[in-house]
Amino acid sequence: MLPDRPVNFSPGPAILPLEVLEEAARGVVALPGLGLSILEISHRSPTFEAILAEARDGLRRLLGVPDSHEILFLQGGARGQFAQIPLNFLKPGQRAGVVVTGVWGEGAFEEAERVGGAYILANGVDSRYAVLPDLAGVSIPADTAYVHTTSNNTVVGSQWPQMPDFGAVPHISDMSSDILSCPIDVSRFALIYAGAQKNMGCAGLTVVVVDRAWMAQGRNDIPEIWQYRAQAAKDSMLNTPPTFSIYVMGLVLRWLEARGGVPAMERENLAKSGAIYDAIERSGGFYRPAVTKAEERSKMNVTFRMGDEALEKRFVSEAKAAGLDGLKGHRIVGGLRASLYNALPLAGAQRLADFMDEFARKNA
Amino acid sequence: MLPDRPVNFSPGPAILPLEVLEEAARGVVALPGLGLSILEISHRSPTFEAILAEARDGLRRLLGVPDSHEILFLQGGARGQFAQIPLNFLKPGQRAGVVVTGVWGEGAFEEAERVGGAYILANGVDSRYAVLPDLAGVSIPADTAYVHTTSNNTVVGSQWPQMPDFGAVPHISDMSSDILSCPIDVSRFALIYAGAQKNMGCAGLTVVVVDRAWMAQGRNDIPEIWQYRAQAAKDSMLNTPPTFSIYVMGLVLRWLEARGGVPAMERENLAKSGAIYDAIERSGGFYRPAVTKAEERSKMNVTFRMGDEALEKRFVSEAKAAGLDGLKGHRIVGGLRASLYNALPLAGAQRLADFMDEFARKNA
Repeated sequence: MLPDRPVNFSPGPAILPLEVLEEAARGVVALPGLGLSILEISHRSPTFEAILAEARDGLRRLLGVPDSHEILFLQGGARGQFAQIPLNFLKPGQRAGVVVTGVWGEGAFEEAERVGGAYILANGVDSRYAVLPDLAGVSIPADTAYVHTTSNNTVVGSQWPQMPDFGAVPHISDMSSDILSCPIDVSRFALIYAGAQKNMGCAGLTVVVVDRAWMAQGRNDIPEIWQYRAQAAKDSMLNTPPTFSIYVMGLVLRWLEARGGVPAMERENLAKSGAIYDAIERSGGFYRPAVTKAEERSKMNVTFRMGDEALEKRFVSEAKAAGLDGLKGHRIVGGLRASLYNALPLAGAQRLADFMDEFARKNA
Repeated sequence: MLPDRPVNFSPGPAILPLEVLEEAARGVVALPGLGLSILEISHRSPTFEAILAEARDGLRRLLGVPDSHEILFLQGGARGQFAQIPLNFLKPGQRAGVVVTGVWGEGAFEEAERVGGAYILANGVDSRYAVLPDLAGVSIPADTAYVHTTSNNTVVGSQWPQMPDFGAVPHISDMSSDILSCPIDVSRFALIYAGAQKNMGCAGLTVVVVDRAWMAQGRNDIPEIWQYRAQAAKDSMLNTPPTFSIYVMGLVLRWLEARGGVPAMERENLAKSGAIYDAIERSGGFYRPAVTKAEERSKMNVTFRMGDEALEKRFVSEAKAAGLDGLKGHRIVGGLRASLYNALPLAGAQRLADFMDEFARKNA
């Protein structure tokens, strides 16, 4: 990190490793050996085909994607998936069962309802999402095409300590904000999706990992561009893919693999979030965690409040002046939020913890 | 252009001005005065909001977009629009009338048919798209929601010398490959769309210019993410926009404006395409234009054949060795194609014309 570079706690688009940014900048002028920019080459050129293959193979290794599952590079973000998933997988008479643990789950429910039909299987709204809903004893109606969950809730700052299991019912999960931050068993999911701009790249790319056998059962009377099967048949190049975003993801995955892959990221993310949660804890109530139970607090988005908006505003601006950027909470909930995605170094989280100690000491 | 940089005739993603690439590379490391990369800042930050506003305002000036029309920054490319347009604008009992002048028009027709209903108003397929269909005397059925055209056909290399007029029937045009290359009267169109990766930026961004009053009549029972009105209400930020592609477009538009805007581009594109068509003409039949009538030949994608595949292959490889890249025709039609988008300098087209003269002399 350059000495004058702020520590970037932005919730997304989010921090990227400086060495990745520097290599991407070189590729924007000219790719090595080619003399042309990554921005100006055909997606059908051998050069780009190799870039796409490297990104896909890297993701398959790092995420542990079994051969049963296809990896797709799409556009349109999580909100695009909110619509595309029910469009493909809701058959007449079926509904989507949605576990709503935050505003992103609300969005997934609303779009599925518009497309064909949805119900809320479990809801955290009564606690204003401060608590994850209890799924013990929840029974799944027979007309359920799939259950949708959100693995990490960026706005409120909660995360499933272990992903729930719905037995034989296909499980779809929005992992936009914690993919590649800790190991998951991909084989348990019918479909996983994530925007690249938090843990693995920049905006403009949406990654979908989908069970091939299930994908083949999707509807084929919908627009071709929105059929997963059609994109799979064309190797994610049914239309011009977001070439630069795929290139950047490839660079991030290479960086991630060199640092020890997902197990190393998990250790680092535990240490980073632990540093901030410890600072909250030792403040003796000056900072209050937004999520009730310790085990449900996110390792990606640490959220806390001071119960005094003016003080929170001062915190954000003094932190910014101290080189700690992007700490304002989401506009819906207010408060503070430190997003600690894979590329954020442990030293950055420690600097924030130190700043929090000092700010509490001066203002308590 | 660096001396060792090939001249890039790629059909898209396509050539960008070197000064734009160099500035974009700096922004990928750190935006001036901010110390953070364009890739890692929030789309809700004041910095990005200014970037988006500059790109939108630049496009409004350069394209001459009247206040009656909204500018949207979306994702998913032209193929996404093939589906999104009928989804918004086909009411029950209505059909889309499609003027099919190439494979892109075929795609627009097929997706509209899947969404609700479509018919072919005029078709160039009998000539294998070597001739644009005659629209004189064509009458438009009463159940037509809109007519769809393609302004420039990248594969075969044809372009409407003047855009057709359908009176009071809403006219939608795919201008992906010639937007900003020559002046158009935006007020005559209900909707114009274009991927950014040919004439105004890099892949991952789709620009839509839509009549506000017409947009307001679109369906509101479809997924919110695909409603133009919903994106307009959220300033194209209903979801995380493709931030880097918008940034690059802003840089390209600034470059374009400094060079004299669209009238200057039109002059330059006429000179560039004229240089190649002249080389075809003076070859005395060695090169043959793919499009029958001179006035229908594209100023963006100059296509020609030699009637000998082995010779065409040699042309492509010898041209590449001479620093002229991307001249292979589209895999559907074969032959040769020189794409001459705005960023391609006149000197590059002249180098190709010289190479063509020399190649014809040696091989005729």
